[in-house]
Amino acid sequence: MAIRYGVIGTGALGGFYGGMLAKAGQEVHFLFRSDLEHVQKHGLRVDSVLGDFRLPQVYAYHTPGEMPLCDVILVCLKTTGNHHLPEMIRPMLHPKSVVVLLQNGLGLEEDLAAQLPGVMLAGGLAFICSNKIGPGHIHHLDYGKLIVGSYNVADQKILEQIAADFQQAGVHTDLSPDLRFARWQKLVWNIPFNGMTVVLNTTTDRLMANEQTRELSKELMLEVIHGANACGVPLNESMAQQMIDMTLRMKPYAPSMKLDFDHRRPMEIGYIYSNPIETARKAGFEMHKISMLEKQLRFIQAHLLVK
Amino acid sequence: MAIRYGVIGTGALGGFYGGMLAKAGQEVHFLFRSDLEHVQKHGLRVDSVLGDFRLPQVYAYHTPGEMPLCDVILVCLKTTGNHHLPEMIRPMLHPKSVVVLLQNGLGLEEDLAAQLPGVMLAGGLAFICSNKIGPGHIHHLDYGKLIVGSYNVADQKILEQIAADFQQAGVHTDLSPDLRFARWQKLVWNIPFNGMTVVLNTTTDRLMANEQTRELSKELMLEVIHGANACGVPLNESMAQQMIDMTLRMKPYAPSMKLDFDHRRPMEIGYIYSNPIETARKAGFEMHKISMLEKQLRFIQAHLLVK
Repeated sequence: MAIRYGVIGTGALGGFYGGMLAKAGQEVHFLFRSDLEHVQKHGLRVDSVLGDFRLPQVYAYHTPGEMPLCDVILVCLKTTGNHHLPEMIRPMLHPKSVVVLLQNGLGLEEDLAAQLPGVMLAGGLAFICSNKIGPGHIHHLDYGKLIVGSYNVADQKILEQIAADFQQAGVHTDLSPDLRFARWQKLVWNIPFNGMTVVLNTTTDRLMANEQTRELSKELMLEVIHGANACGVPLNESMAQQMIDMTLRMKPYAPSMKLDFDHRRPMEIGYIYSNPIETARKAGFEMHKISMLEKQLRFIQAHLLVK
Repeated sequence: MAIRYGVIGTGALGGFYGGMLAKAGQEVHFLFRSDLEHVQKHGLRVDSVLGDFRLPQVYAYHTPGEMPLCDVILVCLKTTGNHHLPEMIRPMLHPKSVVVLLQNGLGLEEDLAAQLPGVMLAGGLAFICSNKIGPGHIHHLDYGKLIVGSYNVADQKILEQIAADFQQAGVHTDLSPDLRFARWQKLVWNIPFNGMTVVLNTTTDRLMANEQTRELSKELMLEVIHGANACGVPLNESMAQQMIDMTLRMKPYAPSMKLDFDHRRPMEIGYIYSNPIETARKAGFEMHKISMLEKQLRFIQAHLLVK
């Protein structure tokens, strides 16, 4: 049985993952905003370390109401727009639709489940360096692995089918038996590097080249791990050094929050910082340094938007 | 008995305090660097909330060797130049000279005592908003109180005389029976605001106007207080709120570290951050947030100077 995919938010992530599925022959319907006209004329362009490609014709829409009903809805929006999600998703839902939140942070599925009761939700973590560099133009720099886990999807078959489709499209995809574990694991990287590249106005390679910030990055990672542990999520401390080593090998990279900062867009502070801090705090663990980083980011955001 | 004063480093602090003494009729000898010629022609100019004044003629020198022997040597240099202190001070010393380090941070007297054994040292804390805004031109914005305490000055009389001279010159001066207490107390303000104005590229009033950074400033203050407590220095927690309230009433202010940052000069990270962190750590207390701030500053400093 073929799955009909819908992609909400065709940017760095949606453009790449949806594009890979479409290139592999899957039926993928893309929701665009400002890029629609450009994509209708020129198609979708992906410059990727896996090989550049263009999709001259894609199913492209401007409003959710025009989209067909979809079996799987990949949400690739910034979480700063999540208050619009229910109205965007509703027109595409049929009774067996599964919504996959390909977003970073904690508490995403909980919030959406409260707004769309009864809808099947899963979460997805993208381990990828990818940026949108122009209208309908994605630059995939490195990595690309997906981890998908159920939030309230009773039947794993549909998730297995999604994973198989991605695999077949060339995207390494793992199913996680524990979405909470996967979300916290992703935060071990996201929390230090998203915030620090913004506060220090820099890139990952420079943070790694400086002994002080390399050490601080690891301390922040350990704080995430200890926060997760306090919440009963068994992340191992050794993961911190692994992620440092991985980042040392990585190409110079500006995480998505840094790009949001550079372009004066709202930053995803709530789901990536405030929710994990609050969740760990409720479990009795205070993430001191991360909470300092959160406050620095909130200050920067307030001044970014009023400037 | 009249005291002959020497001022090393005639900037925001040395220019104001030395200027006030000279205006009151004390004999004050000033060491200048780049400003010497300007001051020889135009004198020293102090714009002060206490009343603007000019000293058309001051004893001004370019090298320590030209300075006379002084009874009291006020060191008003940035601590980033402290490795030059012994050679600067030596030519001005007689057997009863007292060196007063009007500098911020921890461990200053210890370092100098090791380099100038047998010399009498005191420390001074300046609670003042003052900047150098041009050659031989000081702008005193607010406050001005001095706290002076002995490091190894056996006879308090000379310190009492210094305090009396300052009082008579219009500078409120207290003698502290506990220099360590006074130094830690000063850090309660300096640690949050020097670093945060640099990292967030802002001024104290903006940090105070934002709820997140106002809270963070207080948390950093409490960390200093707890660090001091661990070292046996009985600072009271209530001091944090008092300093927040004081800063809320203060005029918009860029602390000296922010000015150093703006002018790409080395920042006083060692004595203001690293030493207190290390001192508290040895006493078994980890200053998490302050150590994060230190690392951010070290990163900024490294990139500031290589740019």
